[in-house]
Amino acid sequence: MGKEITSRTEDYSQWYNDLVKKADLAENSDVRGCMVIKPYGYSIWEKMQQALDKMFKDTGHVNAYFPLFVPKSMFEAEEKNAEGFAKECAIVTHYRLKTDPEKKGKLIVDPAAKLEEELVVRPTSEAIIWSTYKRWVQSYRDLPLLINQWANVVRWEMRTRLFLRTAEFLWQEGHTAHATKQEAIKETEQMLDVYAEFAETFMAMPVIKGIKSEGERFPGAVETYCIEAMMQDGKALQAGTSHFLGQNFADAFDVQFTNKEGKLEKVWGTSWGVSTRLIGALIMAHSDDDGLVIPPRLAPIHVVIVPIFRTEEELSKISETAERIASALRKQGYSVKFDNRDTHKPGFKFAEYELKGVPVRIAIGPRDLENGTVEVARRDTKEKQIMSIETVAASIPALLENIQNNIYQKALKFRESMMTPVDSFEDFKNVLDTKGGFVLAHWDGTPETEAAIKDATKATIRCIPLDAKPEAGVCVYSGKPSTKRVLFARAY
Amino acid sequence: MGKEITSRTEDYSQWYNDLVKKADLAENSDVRGCMVIKPYGYSIWEKMQQALDKMFKDTGHVNAYFPLFVPKSMFEAEEKNAEGFAKECAIVTHYRLKTDPEKKGKLIVDPAAKLEEELVVRPTSEAIIWSTYKRWVQSYRDLPLLINQWANVVRWEMRTRLFLRTAEFLWQEGHTAHATKQEAIKETEQMLDVYAEFAETFMAMPVIKGIKSEGERFPGAVETYCIEAMMQDGKALQAGTSHFLGQNFADAFDVQFTNKEGKLEKVWGTSWGVSTRLIGALIMAHSDDDGLVIPPRLAPIHVVIVPIFRTEEELSKISETAERIASALRKQGYSVKFDNRDTHKPGFKFAEYELKGVPVRIAIGPRDLENGTVEVARRDTKEKQIMSIETVAASIPALLENIQNNIYQKALKFRESMMTPVDSFEDFKNVLDTKGGFVLAHWDGTPETEAAIKDATKATIRCIPLDAKPEAGVCVYSGKPSTKRVLFARAY
Repeated sequence: MGKEITSRTEDYSQWYNDLVKKADLAENSDVRGCMVIKPYGYSIWEKMQQALDKMFKDTGHVNAYFPLFVPKSMFEAEEKNAEGFAKECAIVTHYRLKTDPEKKGKLIVDPAAKLEEELVVRPTSEAIIWSTYKRWVQSYRDLPLLINQWANVVRWEMRTRLFLRTAEFLWQEGHTAHATKQEAIKETEQMLDVYAEFAETFMAMPVIKGIKSEGERFPGAVETYCIEAMMQDGKALQAGTSHFLGQNFADAFDVQFTNKEGKLEKVWGTSWGVSTRLIGALIMAHSDDDGLVIPPRLAPIHVVIVPIFRTEEELSKISETAERIASALRKQGYSVKFDNRDTHKPGFKFAEYELKGVPVRIAIGPRDLENGTVEVARRDTKEKQIMSIETVAASIPALLENIQNNIYQKALKFRESMMTPVDSFEDFKNVLDTKGGFVLAHWDGTPETEAAIKDATKATIRCIPLDAKPEAGVCVYSGKPSTKRVLFARAY
Repeated sequence: MGKEITSRTEDYSQWYNDLVKKADLAENSDVRGCMVIKPYGYSIWEKMQQALDKMFKDTGHVNAYFPLFVPKSMFEAEEKNAEGFAKECAIVTHYRLKTDPEKKGKLIVDPAAKLEEELVVRPTSEAIIWSTYKRWVQSYRDLPLLINQWANVVRWEMRTRLFLRTAEFLWQEGHTAHATKQEAIKETEQMLDVYAEFAETFMAMPVIKGIKSEGERFPGAVETYCIEAMMQDGKALQAGTSHFLGQNFADAFDVQFTNKEGKLEKVWGTSWGVSTRLIGALIMAHSDDDGLVIPPRLAPIHVVIVPIFRTEEELSKISETAERIASALRKQGYSVKFDNRDTHKPGFKFAEYELKGVPVRIAIGPRDLENGTVEVARRDTKEKQIMSIETVAASIPALLENIQNNIYQKALKFRESMMTPVDSFEDFKNVLDTKGGFVLAHWDGTPETEAAIKDATKATIRCIPLDAKPEAGVCVYSGKPSTKRVLFARAY
């Protein structure tokens, strides 16, 4: 195939890059830090969008669209948010190019078209949205606002990585406004649950729900909730965040409402988002040295049918059966590809669809037709079985469900094996260096200790798990008392 | 309601603005020229997207995503395209803000973070996409590329109008690459047909398919095909364009392929797009002085059920019936709202849903329950009829279909009445000033005459209709010979 992939043990990072490129998911563009999401990669994103969008709507949210640009003075209004993103913002300063008088056919920025106020390309949309909510909210009757936006955002990252960290990325950002603190917290938690359910049910990727430490909190949030996943190399990946914003943005943009008693109150807010980064997580959670392993619920192609033939006549007979199976599967809502190209050998095709992570492959040759059977191979375990032509289409749904569950169980088992409680800093460092994964350790709760541990080990507090049990102990670093273990890991 | 709408006869332009704002479709943001698309407006866009996306996929296209930014040197590569958009481009020149040393809490652009090369925020993506296609195309086996992108684009318009002309707007842009000229032209025409079908079948808006004159051609195209619609005020609106790019972008970006004979050839291209402007067209084509008239196939809510009640007990009885009808309709795939608010009177609700253009309203009162009937009102004609509770849900699909057709027929009849052939420039001006609409006139085919007519009348050549019959005549302006009539109009 000429599409050799570096193995995970040899170089995990190169394995990831190879997969992204060779499976045609994405590539670097000529624009620094910006990626091109190729059709196959984008079709995974479309599947993710459909599932998430339905979950958002089922929980009462609607979509809207807010401007790409944020005037600098608006961007500044919530100080912590502005400070958090100021260092990685793309800034529009001019609105026109003109012909270069010195070089024919070339253009230069027209100095006469300088903006009075610079525009920030949104790194996140709290500022522009809360400045709009000010106009939309007067009375308690206008609340809650439960709005989501699908959009592109720009954060000028210095070190980029396809899907995981790019200057421009695609995401959704929910921004809600509420009359009470309690309701806003409930919303924050509800959306965390939605993300966790999506990660586990669709991505087949187990996650740990928790709260970020102050140091890792979203700039402008009172509390940041997150879901954390474990990749195959033992590094953690933050797969989604849901922020309780308190009244910070209501303060910054003066968003108040008249309550039932006729008194003015400040509005409570939340925001929550997941991005194309999830495609990176999906790859790293499940794939192997032969290529992608995509859970059926997010697979752009569920079943590929590969004919094994020497002559046109053989192909024609096989095609009849293949089209019948394909049509029966399509009627059940599955995406099926019949690859009848005569320019490539079956072995080449087998490797190609393994690389692309198609969950089920059906091979049909002349002898199969005689026997009334087909060969069905599953991508996750590579197991093959012989099925009857008459029943194969009816058997596929259960097989796909089985594959979905198996991928999840495998990832769960791995994640469980990567949760290591430690009680000394020596062990802490040892586990990180030899095994990786999540380290459950006592921490004294101070940003200073958190920073010192990060400096010494590159591990950060991924979250304080929501289900952490109270347990008296002492901080692995400072020896000061602690009431529960938190989750440390090196992370993407 | 406090939501009075200026009538069309009084001030058409103000009527449009009133509708957009009062029906909660969109509003101006604090960012110059950029709009906020509100949830109700966005849900119409979602309906449009779904229908178009399916049509694109059914014709073999796939979606992908390309960067928001185009480096200036890349932007310049196709000279005509660059020239066409240079005067309305947002330019990113810096990638960081820093604390203003003179004003606490304020930020300034960090002069140390000046980009080596400025980035243009895409006004259209031919440049970035063809610079990518160069990497993707080597052999005839790599062709065709049939790719679409859903994205935001920015064109720095000086005079903006919600939906119709905004600095940032949402659109889809298809970009295809082909081995032969013939195939590329076929693609250009196919996508024009897709747009026409979408406009007529979903938007219930008749369109005329044609070719742009040289003066109105897309910068960088060899030929621009378009669909033109007629608004109720007699002005035309370009509703979609499909461009045959020839080899212009292959030339600019050096995109070549090895043909079956092993020889290098240049690739042929097309691009085609429609935007959120279509929402403006939808409004202006059908709506009336009471509010929006939305064709059922694009309506976010198909049916609203309004209970007429005095007491809680009455509401509870009505609710039972309403929920049964709603549930039967939802099972058939319709979107139904049961508005059981006790804070607003039925009359208020009736006006609200007329304003929002909900195609069918069902009202249910206590007497209706006794009679086993409901009152069904259709938004397009305002006709009311009594239907049996038992059969109403089964009758709605045909009613909605009838409404969809009626809206189309009405628009078609109007458009037909607004097609006026003229044979003198006197008549030309007269028709434009008294009646408006499309004027079918002979034109000598020169850009000079086209410009002179525009200067004198503000009318432009909307298109040379594809179905124009050969007819000898003389140009209304110059008296020079002409072989067919072209379509002139004042336009949005």
